[in-house]
This record gives sequence, structure tokens and C-alpha cells, in this order.
Amino acid sequence: MTSLIRSAIRAMKGYTPGEQPREDGIIKLNTNENPYPPSPRVFEAIQTALTGDRLRKYPDPVGTLFRQTAARLHDHDPEGILIGNGSDDILTIVTRAFVPEGGLIASPTPSYLLYRTLAELQGARFQNVPFTADWQLPLPWPASDAQLTFVANPNSPTGTLVSLANLEAFARACPNPLVIDEAYVDFADHDARPLLRHPQVILTRTLSKSYALAGIRFGYALGSPAVIRELSKVKDSYNCDVLSLAAATAALQDQDYLRATLATIRATRTRLDGELQRLGFATLPSSANFLWCTHPSRAARTLYEELKRRNILVRYMVYEGFGEGLRISVGSDAEIDRLLHEVRSLV
Amino acid sequence: MTSLIRSAIRAMKGYTPGEQPREDGIIKLNTNENPYPPSPRVFEAIQTALTGDRLRKYPDPVGTLFRQTAARLHDHDPEGILIGNGSDDILTIVTRAFVPEGGLIASPTPSYLLYRTLAELQGARFQNVPFTADWQLPLPWPASDAQLTFVANPNSPTGTLVSLANLEAFARACPNPLVIDEAYVDFADHDARPLLRHPQVILTRTLSKSYALAGIRFGYALGSPAVIRELSKVKDSYNCDVLSLAAATAALQDQDYLRATLATIRATRTRLDGELQRLGFATLPSSANFLWCTHPSRAARTLYEELKRRNILVRYMVYEGFGEGLRISVGSDAEIDRLLHEVRSLV
Repeated sequence: MTSLIRSAIRAMKGYTPGEQPREDGIIKLNTNENPYPPSPRVFEAIQTALTGDRLRKYPDPVGTLFRQTAARLHDHDPEGILIGNGSDDILTIVTRAFVPEGGLIASPTPSYLLYRTLAELQGARFQNVPFTADWQLPLPWPASDAQLTFVANPNSPTGTLVSLANLEAFARACPNPLVIDEAYVDFADHDARPLLRHPQVILTRTLSKSYALAGIRFGYALGSPAVIRELSKVKDSYNCDVLSLAAATAALQDQDYLRATLATIRATRTRLDGELQRLGFATLPSSANFLWCTHPSRAARTLYEELKRRNILVRYMVYEGFGEGLRISVGSDAEIDRLLHEVRSLV
Repeated sequence: MTSLIRSAIRAMKGYTPGEQPREDGIIKLNTNENPYPPSPRVFEAIQTALTGDRLRKYPDPVGTLFRQTAARLHDHDPEGILIGNGSDDILTIVTRAFVPEGGLIASPTPSYLLYRTLAELQGARFQNVPFTADWQLPLPWPASDAQLTFVANPNSPTGTLVSLANLEAFARACPNPLVIDEAYVDFADHDARPLLRHPQVILTRTLSKSYALAGIRFGYALGSPAVIRELSKVKDSYNCDVLSLAAATAALQDQDYLRATLATIRATRTRLDGELQRLGFATLPSSANFLWCTHPSRAARTLYEELKRRNILVRYMVYEGFGEGLRISVGSDAEIDRLLHEVRSLV
């Protein structure tokens, strides 16, 4: 029976997300979750949604209130905002909208592994293009015939940031759809909203990282209204539920809380970076809520395994042409203290 | 820029879901929501999920607890259960897994309009096959070369039920994937679980109708573990959120509540059917939580519009080769009394 599955999918290994242990007592620094809870307003909004008659009814398919809130926050047309069941849902939608079977998706490497998976699912080819030595996009871009280019900015697993000028030059040179995946952008010094005057540019955002809502699955896209209208045809009618819509709207409305959380995480990131360097690690300059690091004498896989034995999960990753390393989420200060304590005993 | 959208999608009108008015005071009998609230256990489970640390962390990607619960309920292997963000998510997943661009999807007509939309999104062809006069699948089935066949059972908009014997004969004759969409099956006298011994058969279920959880978006598939494993590669890693997983699990655990709700809705359905017939309507025998009806002298569109003017929403639908009619959800007894009162003044 599985022979009836499309061969492109049968051949896939499938995307493996980071480990999500169900046990308590594990310090989880492997999937870039926020160590702090979401805004108290999120809980209030969920309670309000629960008191009415809303669970039994279908949600608003376009998320009108969320769109209005996001439009105000980003000074963008609400018709140019698309809601998603996590930003992964948005990445699937743009893939299906732009890329035919046999088409081409491009992305700099190393980056988010899901982009290749999305190409495989669509029966499309995938082209990796190495970043420049200073973590920018090489121009001219050697894959300008791709129907779709994904640029994670800040990038994962490196945490590095492509400059606005570099993105601007890319968008001028390349008329095809460019998705700038800004999952981590709230931890950076700038975002790419100025690029939105190019109609082929789409920005994607998630509530999973800076807003601490990985559990509720919510993301969105910013783009030109004409493009968002086409993308809306591809999404499931009711892709976001009433509770996640309420939670996401409330989270965006509490920018003071966001700013406070971001300041704490960025301060911890600076401290973690300094301490890792003192312990002999090479780190990359991070604009995200994680750090990429390697050690000159200790294998990354060994460090990962030793830390796991000590109930600390970090992400071990290996990329062809780039090598292996650890991606460590910026946890709370207490979690980072525990991590550093264990790392000291290992290097 | 929209010229870069795949032509198959540009050409689409997009699926139009039933109206979801945000105003209060409207009697909503147009999208087959349950008139009664979900089980109290659902609210308790959501509260428990909110007290912990779970919103900020990613959910269990495979929904282990839900799968165990559904496996016990259906006496099925948990590895043969796939979780979805509504059963529409499952229908998208099976389409992407089985149907190549240029492939063929078949379905009896009239039925759920989304099946054609899914074919269009995938760049596949779509073949409608009329039901027999007694609402069964014609055998031999004229589209047996389809990579995927969708059979909504009970069917929408008719509410009619294909017999197990008819489905069994179909599955024996047709080795290609057959999805039996059982969104409404809890309102019927039997389901198609005996068909699961055919490895090409997949059943889909939703929590939106009988469990009164349209707002939280949860559905699932039952199939052979080997097939479900392949389908899992196609789904978003985290397609279901922590609150919907908690809610869906709790809902399935309260079968007493489900049975009570179903008994009430089925009694109201019988009453509505009898009253509509007394008012001169022709109705179809319904195994779902809605009724399809036509009136010999009053146009369905006029009735729809007149009812809407009176703050009662029903679904007006027209199908090529079948004609037009009204699909009326079985609401609460009070809602149906209001509906019948207004209908009496209109016919």
C-alpha cells in the first residue's frame, strides 16, 4: 500500500524536530523556546475566549482582530497579513503557492532544515547557496531562477544577521518571490519591513520565540495585499483556532512585556557568549535567542551527549560543507548558570 | 507579482466556507456546528494545560496521549492514528501524499466542495461521479484510476449514508487510496471501521461536529500504521497545539456526554424532518446533524434570503446536475422552533 505514496515522499526521511521530552527536570536549551512565560494578558484573553460560546463555533477564518492588531503594530495594510498555524504553516503555504512540481527552491546554507523538506514534499529541487564569509548573501545570487528563496534572518543555526543593504540588493536583482523568515527578528537590532515595498518580498513571523507561545502554534506573514490574497486560497479555511487567535492578539498588544523579556534574554545572551568564549569556545555573533558554538578540542557530539546525561538538552547539528556544532538556546539565567557549570567540567 | 503564483492557484476562486458572522443574536444553522457546548471535561483539561509551563514550549508533535485515547476508543493501533489541525488538515495531508501534479482525485457528487479545491491546489484533475438513485456508490466505479477517492460518509450536503456492504465492495474492487471522511459519523448508525482491514482505506474524523469543538481545530485519521507513518512526513511537525490536544483528548474521554448530546440532536433531527415534510418540503434521510431540503414551490435561494433577513442563517447550495436546496443544521430545540416558526410564514 505504501507504494501508492508519491515517490518523492516515500524517499524522504521526514523532518526531525528537536527532542521534546515529556519528563520534568530537564533543562531544555534545544528548540529555542523562550524561558519566560507569555504575557499575563495572554492568559486573560484565553479565559475570556473560554467563557463565551466560542469553542463550539468555527473561528474567524481570516483572523480579523489579529490582523488589525498586527497591522497597527507594523504599520502595514491588514489585507497584507496572513494568519498561520505557526510560521511553518505559512512556509508550507508559500511553497505550494509559488513552486510547481519539478520547480526550484533556494536558500543559503547552513540554515533551517525545513526548507529542504518543503521542497521534497512539493516534488521540487532544492539548491543550497553558502553564505559569504561574513554571513551575507553572495551577490550575484547563483540561484536567481528559483521560484522561491527562503532567507532566515536572523539565521538558524548560526544566529547571524544579513544586513538590510544586502537584502535590498538581493531584492533589486532578483524579481522572484523572496521569503524572509523572521522567526527570531525580535531578538535582533533591525527587521526587514523596509523591504516590503518590493512586491515579491514576504516576511514571516512566529509567536513561538519572542512571545513565548510555541505551544499555541501561531505565525503570520506580511506581504503585498495582492499576494496575500492569492496565498489565502492555499491555506486551510480555518487554520487558526479561537484560543490561539485570542492568545496571539493579546500577546502583540503587550509590547511592554515583550520589550522587558527581550532585554533580559539579550543580556543573558551576551553573558553566555562571553563565558563560552572564556571556556575556549568559538561562537558566532548572535542576533537570535541562541548561540552557535564549537570547541577546538572537544567534539560537539560528545558535549551534546555528556550534557544530555546531565539532563541538559542542547541541539547538536551537522551541516555538509559547514561542519558540526552546538546550538544552545538562551535560557533563563539560572538555566544558563547550570549549563555553564556543567560545561566547565567537560572542557 | 501575482503572475509568479502557480497558474493553477491563480485560476482558482478559492474555497468559500460558510458565513461566520461575528454579531450576536443570529441563529446559525449554516455550518453544522453543535448547538450544545463541549463536555465540561474539555474546559477542565484546558485549565490544567494553562496552569503549567506548556504555552511557551512546543507541543508533543505526534500527540501521544491523544493517540492512546483514540486507540482505546476505536480499538485501533495508536501508530495507525494521525493527528490534524482539523480534519481539513488531514485531507490536505492525504492529497499531498498520494496525488502528483496532473494526477486524479475522484469523489461522488454532490459532496464536500473542498475535495475539488484540494485537487486544484495540488494541480490535479478532479472527477465527480454521481451517486446512485439510492445514494450509494455506483459499482463498477468509473474513476478507479484515481490516485485518491474521497467519500464523505455520511455525506454533505445530503446527509445520506453509504452502506458498509457498498463500501466493502468498493474497497475490494479498487486498490487505490480511499479516504472515508467520517466528519458526521457519530450522528449515524454505523461507521466504517470494519473497512480498516483494507490497507488502502483511511478514515478521517473531526472534533468539530459531534464533540462541539469547531473552534479548537482538531481532527484525526485512522489507517494502517505503515501508511500513517508516511502521512506523518507530510504534516507540519507541530500541527496541533497544546490546548487543542488537551481539549480533544478530554472530549474523547467523555463518551457519556457525547452519547447524551447525540441522542438529543438525533431526536431534534427527527422532529425537524417531520415538520419540514408537513410544510411541504422534500427532505433526504439524514444520518448527520443537518437536513437537505427543497420545496416544490418556493425557490431555495429566496427562502435562504428571507430567513437571513430574519437573523436565521441556513446554507443555500447549488450543485451542477443535482440542483439547489437548503442544508439546515440541527440546532437546539429552541433554535429549530424559531426556524420552523419563520418557515411557516414563508411557505
